[in-house]
Amino acid sequence: MIASQAELTQQLLNSGLWISSKVNGVFGWGQGFETVISALDSRITQFSEADAATSINFPPILDRSILTRTGYLHSFPELCGSVHSFCGSEHEHQALLTAVEGDADWSPHVKQTDVALTPAVCYPLYPTLSGTLPEDGVLYSLSSYVFRHEPSLDPARLQAFRMRENVRLGNQAQVVAWRQLWMDRALSLLTSLELDVELDIATDPFFGRGGKMMKANQKQDEGKFEILCPITSAEEPTAIASFNYHQSKFSSVFEILLADGELAHSACIGFGLERCALALFSTHGMALETWPAAVRQELGL
Amino acid sequence: MIASQAELTQQLLNSGLWISSKVNGVFGWGQGFETVISALDSRITQFSEADAATSINFPPILDRSILTRTGYLHSFPELCGSVHSFCGSEHEHQALLTAVEGDADWSPHVKQTDVALTPAVCYPLYPTLSGTLPEDGVLYSLSSYVFRHEPSLDPARLQAFRMRENVRLGNQAQVVAWRQLWMDRALSLLTSLELDVELDIATDPFFGRGGKMMKANQKQDEGKFEILCPITSAEEPTAIASFNYHQSKFSSVFEILLADGELAHSACIGFGLERCALALFSTHGMALETWPAAVRQELGL
Repeated sequence: MIASQAELTQQLLNSGLWISSKVNGVFGWGQGFETVISALDSRITQFSEADAATSINFPPILDRSILTRTGYLHSFPELCGSVHSFCGSEHEHQALLTAVEGDADWSPHVKQTDVALTPAVCYPLYPTLSGTLPEDGVLYSLSSYVFRHEPSLDPARLQAFRMRENVRLGNQAQVVAWRQLWMDRALSLLTSLELDVELDIATDPFFGRGGKMMKANQKQDEGKFEILCPITSAEEPTAIASFNYHQSKFSSVFEILLADGELAHSACIGFGLERCALALFSTHGMALETWPAAVRQELGL
Repeated sequence: MIASQAELTQQLLNSGLWISSKVNGVFGWGQGFETVISALDSRITQFSEADAATSINFPPILDRSILTRTGYLHSFPELCGSVHSFCGSEHEHQALLTAVEGDADWSPHVKQTDVALTPAVCYPLYPTLSGTLPEDGVLYSLSSYVFRHEPSLDPARLQAFRMRENVRLGNQAQVVAWRQLWMDRALSLLTSLELDVELDIATDPFFGRGGKMMKANQKQDEGKFEILCPITSAEEPTAIASFNYHQSKFSSVFEILLADGELAHSACIGFGLERCALALFSTHGMALETWPAAVRQELGL
């Protein structure tokens, strides 16, 4: 009874919840959809506030050197978005316009800028933390649009989407316990929304042959868990939240130290807000007013 | 007594309202700043709801062909953000990594994608309206992040920022009257927030020598008005809202017709949310709790 990718997309467009564009994985979002996104965001914020986490909203672009320093181009080169602009003279402008009018590649006429699209919400945070952390480490509640270059017909695979993250830096025991706390919180929240969710160990989509070894290592280290929910397939449920333990990967790059001088450990937990909302619409239908009363109440709708 | 650009930036960073990055014009935003952004957004939404405008939130990227079709590369080539990704083999990946590790330009190793950064919130709307509009035209309430490649030390000139737009399509009389209504509403709102604002005729920053003629035409046609407010200079106040009448520029590109078969006219009005918030912090100080009671009440703080 689960709608296919094409059927779900059509239902979203027909009901005005989504607005189409000519590019796969790029949509506008109507008021009903945004109401659910805001409600989910507020529920997650309640947990962040219980942690007394510091709240930051980042723009959709970041300092490009963060991608190179963290090895993003090594692990996920095909997902990155590098931003290029025209920086030339009036004469060079004519050459750009000739390319544009001939529907040719602009690449020879634009230059790489200092910014790239944000690939995950916690990337711009780490460089701001270089130095020594307070005794009990730090907690952050973050939000941003993120970009993944993976154009797809799957409505749950957008090129630009909102990620709601929480991040913890501290010692290993603090960080691992905090990730477990958020797995419990997320399962509890999503179950209360009457979603058919399950927690599973997972891996990131590391690129190429070398990526296979990185996936194996990540699995062995229990570096990543995901909460999965059927959106357009019962057999291949979609990850709607992830729980990632980085050991000292980011702290070693940006020299983030604990009070005792050791490298900090870090973990981030992220909710894909559009995917969580899609799980709700797919499960409970396109009309908010017909959703189960308990779900509406839990979301404050 | 107005703080300089450097002083205001330092005040914002010291108070935790902004979080710095290594790139000019790219910042994170702390909770106090976001509280004001949300409050401004809500006040503008009250006007949109009075218009019964249809609400859409667009992502920070759009179909790149919209820029070419609307002449954006002709008028504002240096502001655009074209998105490029790696699309190669494992062998080509090695060449990318060599460039990245040597801090060289990635351009030869990445390809232009189908998306670009959204330059103004109304651009993704127009292609969705191709065809014949209802009798009374249409009204939209839009929000999105937009991008301008203009790295600057001016805290009011960000590379990525939030723009809150309203758009009207209809006949000339409808569109011009609606723009006037929003100029009145915006002046009333911003004055009630005790900001020292003034309305003035304005022009867009059209590129190059040809741009001079376009500016002159725009001024003669009264195509653009702005509301200006001192943020870091009394002599050169900053535009915090703009009111643009496009005649049939966008409708002719996307074939948007009135019920009588004529081309629709369009206008958009936009608030730069970060600039409006900066005007408030610059005028009333960095501590929300010390702002004038009338301002706090108007914003629901």
